[in-house]
Amino acid sequence: MTPVQRKNFDRLMQPAQIAFVGGTDAEIAIEEARRRGFTGEIWAVNPKRREMGGVPCVASVEELPTAPDAVFLAIPARPAIKVVQSLAAMGAGGVVCYTAGFREAGADGQALEQALLAAVGDLALIGPNCYGMINYLDGAALWPFAHGGDCPGYGAAIITQSGMLSSDITMSRRSLPLTHMISAGNQSVLALEDFVEALTGNPAVRAIGLHIEGLQDVAKFERAMLSAIQAGTPVVALKTGRSAIGSSLTQSHTGSLSGANELYDALFERTGVIAVDSPAQFIETLKYLCVAGAPNGRNVAGFTCSGGGATMLADHSETIGLKFPQFDTSDAALLRDLLPDIASVSNPLDYTTPIWGQPEKTLPVFSQAIASAGADAAILVQDYPAAGLDDTKPYYLADGLAFAQVAKAHDIPAAICSTISENMDADTRATLIEAGVAPMQGLQEALNAMLHAAKWAEARNRILAAPPAPLLSLASSPGVTMIHEAASKALLVDAGIDLPKGALVSGTEAPEAAERLGFPVVLKMMSAALAHKTEAGAVILGLKGRKAVQQAVRQMAESVAKHAPKAATDSYLVERMAPLPVAEMIVGIRRDPQFGLAMMIGSGGVLVEILNDTKTLLLPATPDEIRLALGQLKLAKLLNGYRGKPVVDLDQLAQRLARLAAFAVKNAATIAEIEINPLFLYTDRLCAVDALIHLVEPKC
Amino acid sequence: MTPVQRKNFDRLMQPAQIAFVGGTDAEIAIEEARRRGFTGEIWAVNPKRREMGGVPCVASVEELPTAPDAVFLAIPARPAIKVVQSLAAMGAGGVVCYTAGFREAGADGQALEQALLAAVGDLALIGPNCYGMINYLDGAALWPFAHGGDCPGYGAAIITQSGMLSSDITMSRRSLPLTHMISAGNQSVLALEDFVEALTGNPAVRAIGLHIEGLQDVAKFERAMLSAIQAGTPVVALKTGRSAIGSSLTQSHTGSLSGANELYDALFERTGVIAVDSPAQFIETLKYLCVAGAPNGRNVAGFTCSGGGATMLADHSETIGLKFPQFDTSDAALLRDLLPDIASVSNPLDYTTPIWGQPEKTLPVFSQAIASAGADAAILVQDYPAAGLDDTKPYYLADGLAFAQVAKAHDIPAAICSTISENMDADTRATLIEAGVAPMQGLQEALNAMLHAAKWAEARNRILAAPPAPLLSLASSPGVTMIHEAASKALLVDAGIDLPKGALVSGTEAPEAAERLGFPVVLKMMSAALAHKTEAGAVILGLKGRKAVQQAVRQMAESVAKHAPKAATDSYLVERMAPLPVAEMIVGIRRDPQFGLAMMIGSGGVLVEILNDTKTLLLPATPDEIRLALGQLKLAKLLNGYRGKPVVDLDQLAQRLARLAAFAVKNAATIAEIEINPLFLYTDRLCAVDALIHLVEPKC
Repeated sequence: MTPVQRKNFDRLMQPAQIAFVGGTDAEIAIEEARRRGFTGEIWAVNPKRREMGGVPCVASVEELPTAPDAVFLAIPARPAIKVVQSLAAMGAGGVVCYTAGFREAGADGQALEQALLAAVGDLALIGPNCYGMINYLDGAALWPFAHGGDCPGYGAAIITQSGMLSSDITMSRRSLPLTHMISAGNQSVLALEDFVEALTGNPAVRAIGLHIEGLQDVAKFERAMLSAIQAGTPVVALKTGRSAIGSSLTQSHTGSLSGANELYDALFERTGVIAVDSPAQFIETLKYLCVAGAPNGRNVAGFTCSGGGATMLADHSETIGLKFPQFDTSDAALLRDLLPDIASVSNPLDYTTPIWGQPEKTLPVFSQAIASAGADAAILVQDYPAAGLDDTKPYYLADGLAFAQVAKAHDIPAAICSTISENMDADTRATLIEAGVAPMQGLQEALNAMLHAAKWAEARNRILAAPPAPLLSLASSPGVTMIHEAASKALLVDAGIDLPKGALVSGTEAPEAAERLGFPVVLKMMSAALAHKTEAGAVILGLKGRKAVQQAVRQMAESVAKHAPKAATDSYLVERMAPLPVAEMIVGIRRDPQFGLAMMIGSGGVLVEILNDTKTLLLPATPDEIRLALGQLKLAKLLNGYRGKPVVDLDQLAQRLARLAAFAVKNAATIAEIEINPLFLYTDRLCAVDALIHLVEPKC
Repeated sequence: MTPVQRKNFDRLMQPAQIAFVGGTDAEIAIEEARRRGFTGEIWAVNPKRREMGGVPCVASVEELPTAPDAVFLAIPARPAIKVVQSLAAMGAGGVVCYTAGFREAGADGQALEQALLAAVGDLALIGPNCYGMINYLDGAALWPFAHGGDCPGYGAAIITQSGMLSSDITMSRRSLPLTHMISAGNQSVLALEDFVEALTGNPAVRAIGLHIEGLQDVAKFERAMLSAIQAGTPVVALKTGRSAIGSSLTQSHTGSLSGANELYDALFERTGVIAVDSPAQFIETLKYLCVAGAPNGRNVAGFTCSGGGATMLADHSETIGLKFPQFDTSDAALLRDLLPDIASVSNPLDYTTPIWGQPEKTLPVFSQAIASAGADAAILVQDYPAAGLDDTKPYYLADGLAFAQVAKAHDIPAAICSTISENMDADTRATLIEAGVAPMQGLQEALNAMLHAAKWAEARNRILAAPPAPLLSLASSPGVTMIHEAASKALLVDAGIDLPKGALVSGTEAPEAAERLGFPVVLKMMSAALAHKTEAGAVILGLKGRKAVQQAVRQMAESVAKHAPKAATDSYLVERMAPLPVAEMIVGIRRDPQFGLAMMIGSGGVLVEILNDTKTLLLPATPDEIRLALGQLKLAKLLNGYRGKPVVDLDQLAQRLARLAAFAVKNAATIAEIEINPLFLYTDRLCAVDALIHLVEPKC
């Protein structure tokens, strides 16, 4: 945002006046502003109506007493553009453009969107094709549907690309503290990155939730996420449109470009964004972060008053990677003294019904167990009875509040969760939030949220120590030209990658070249038109003498003449066969119009498709970032002296791959794509046994 | 159950009289029986009180007017045993023994449990250490806590091993139709298999839910599950105690033995049991099965009135394996005519707000799309606004009921789901159930439930066509003796598995034997005391001449003398090296005291730990069952002509492995364990390159 836009955005978010322009939708929006407790001026604009929602109408925005801070615009697209132009001229603050029919509606709509952009001037405009915004913190709303949600003075700011989803979230009954809800629509003027940057400065915004269908400016997104990390504001992302069908639907939905899942995953990991995969998990993770905060590690103390609950805590934590440290003998003895005889001392701990609802007995248990487990976080499982059915709620709450008190004393994030999401009523949730404990709905969702928060804290430490470099901005979709293997390999010498000893020769020179190199050799025909050498019979391995090479040249010439006649050449690469490696990798570097350069690393060789063991990183990448990715590959197990093989040091391997990555970044203007498969790994070097490079075609 | 027990069980479930024996707990149970609408006689037994819950007390069960059909027993363990004895003598029907302190409480408790068993006679006893039972269908309850839940005349019967979980489920607000809730406790007399067999005969019981910590009699469980499959009653299992900590907690909890996860998974797959991993998914899957039923395939037609919802449907379905078939050109044209211009025609279909809430317009869309997609099931996403916030509910409901009508006309199971679980109110859920549509809470849970139901129908067809054989009952934990490789391999000849050409010789005979076999050979020292040959230097591969063999014998003798001196022998297996196979497998057969014989098949060779590609089957297993498991291995991709390799026909491979399985079953009395690793796969045969057998030690 420009400084003026930013000032106008602040006016839009905390308006002194809101003008509602339109018919029924605008009328509902007036009600919603009142529901949110908006106390400023409400103005109504409609040339055909005398009043809307009890507010007298003027016929046009020009007739308003002054330029309004905020405008809710719900009239058809063409007149809407005119009104935007007038508002810009008047010096209004911001506009929520509910109106649809712009970019998302095909070619005609795209033209309209261009006109809107030309009209908008310095206005802070949300949309078009959006629901608008709700400011829970300051009591303002420009929102054309009934909405729910509350703010205890702090909370999560949520920005979505689906109006319906934002509505569903405000209607959820999960007591997620909310500060803002913004439905971003087409993001023609203000995009989600702008909202994130504006909101991270606000200390009441304890976490930010993003629903992402696609991004428009990945480099800008990276900057916004890094500033959120700097500010200590966790960002949770729900990325939809991951499937083939879903991705095509997303494009029709808001006109966003939905990129490949691996690139998004790499971007989120790089920038410390917490990725979740369902709306419920999105809400629960935000709730945990806002109310409890992020733990400093993954060690948890868990409590239940039922064996079944303890078992379920342990089961799911083992699946996802949270830890319940067990008590040593002396600590266990201390706990045994505090517990009824029938209790088994374990973490998670079933403290058993004889002391249930007796905080004078449960409090010391909670305290001792948290101390003994060295817990970074604590969780208590409680399913509250349905209202009207049972009078035992005070017993649950007594234990719950004792637990809250202990967690506060130990200064660790704490959550109470129900096994089934709805088994915790709104009053209880409010009481727990007041006590500083996150009221989590669903046992697995609660544990997932704790893990997310712990991983976010780990990522933040990593990123603050060494912030990732800005992503590359590359010219969009250049044409590319393939070059043959020998030429590709020649380029790789600068990348610090060894090559098999070889010679580029004619067919008749091949036998002698082979003898000079030493047998066994491999023979390959070189042609920039031959993308699939193996299929065309243009690779023969394991040749052990001059005669064999001579015969191979003849056979290869015949085969290529038959399978790919236009690609045939008399240029051959003869290479000494590389010794057996410790392991084989595949490394691919490609350019993406949105994400810049991306490097894929993975298990290579014959099992590559079966192992499906790959990891994608965005470039530039440091050795540490590459090391982290390597450690997540199954391949890493093969390099650790597996079954008596030599060791490949992962730190050194990361250094070597980082050199290749740096080479790709440096040559991004000319090299479009690199694929090395297999890349042989030895203890002291890398060797590119096969490599293929595509060059960027110079623009005419 | 014996016929008398069965009659008594029926009396317990539909009692004409219930006697409540005990104090406060019994008093609460009286209230709960009334809450459930119990209209029979209520009797109270307490020597110290005059009345309980308004019912005059008698001092002992002997003073009751007649032998009661049902007794709720909540007094300490020792007197409880006496009361049980009296009740058995009186000819009472059944007992819920809420009393704890039996097997789950250590050695003393075990003795008490034996005394209880000696006292019980023909009584149908639930527990001890349980909450009891609620019969929603007939209006009876023996249950010592407040409970919720309802029955529309049909529903799910749930049997749990955690009283607290059963309570949490009755308190859930998900409108799961319930017929019965049984908290099974220690299952000392009646076990969950007994309940399943008794309940599957009841047509109102449309599905059965089991919460399992551990099983006591796996063969009986298999029989009960197969009778449920025969009856067409789906069974959904929530198995807890899967983690290391969880498993130890479970044992302390109800004294059940929690077995290995792979064996449970194999058992569930074999018997068509639907396995779920969270209480919410348990409830939602049961709800879908009870209200909507099981679809005949995995093709789904999906509808939303929001692009975001359609995308999320597509995303999760792709992840789990449900299909949304796309429309062909002519069908798409038909739909386009029925839809607003702004709609994109796709499956899942966002039918868009212009026709929202207009059933005369949405009904033809639903109908056309279901027909065009060839859908086996249909789903509509709707998040209902929170009560009091919005008056748009009739619009949602109008579309919902049109959808229900269409699904009924097409005779396919139908569900309406909210994106977030609680965004569907109780009234709406009741209306939808009335209309025959499952009101599903949570988009992912809804899709998971649909997949579960479709897979159950597939499994049922498979099992009815070829019911799995009864599992083996094996003597418990026999001692075992290892035999050496050559002896192991000799046994395998009968199993239809080829062996490398080889000879068992002394060290001095080895070079000549090798020459006779043909080089290269492998040399291995044979000793039943040598479990880890490689580590002791007792395997040398690739020997290419007499001299090499001679030297290898010397080297091996020295190495074993050093590393495992007690295991040294002068017995050597010389084998011709087997030719390179198409692929390598690992096959293990082992006995489990609970599950009988289990066969593990998986990818073998050097990558076995890294691929972690295994599948466990219980024996006996048919070639079809083995074929199904093989198809789930990553290995299967390697056998299909991968990268130009020869093809290994999976059907034939399954036949060969079935022969090995049959061999193990036939010899179960003598062979305790077989491990073949690697097993080389060729197109026309299997070859056991290494094998190790453990024999059962004869009992003295």
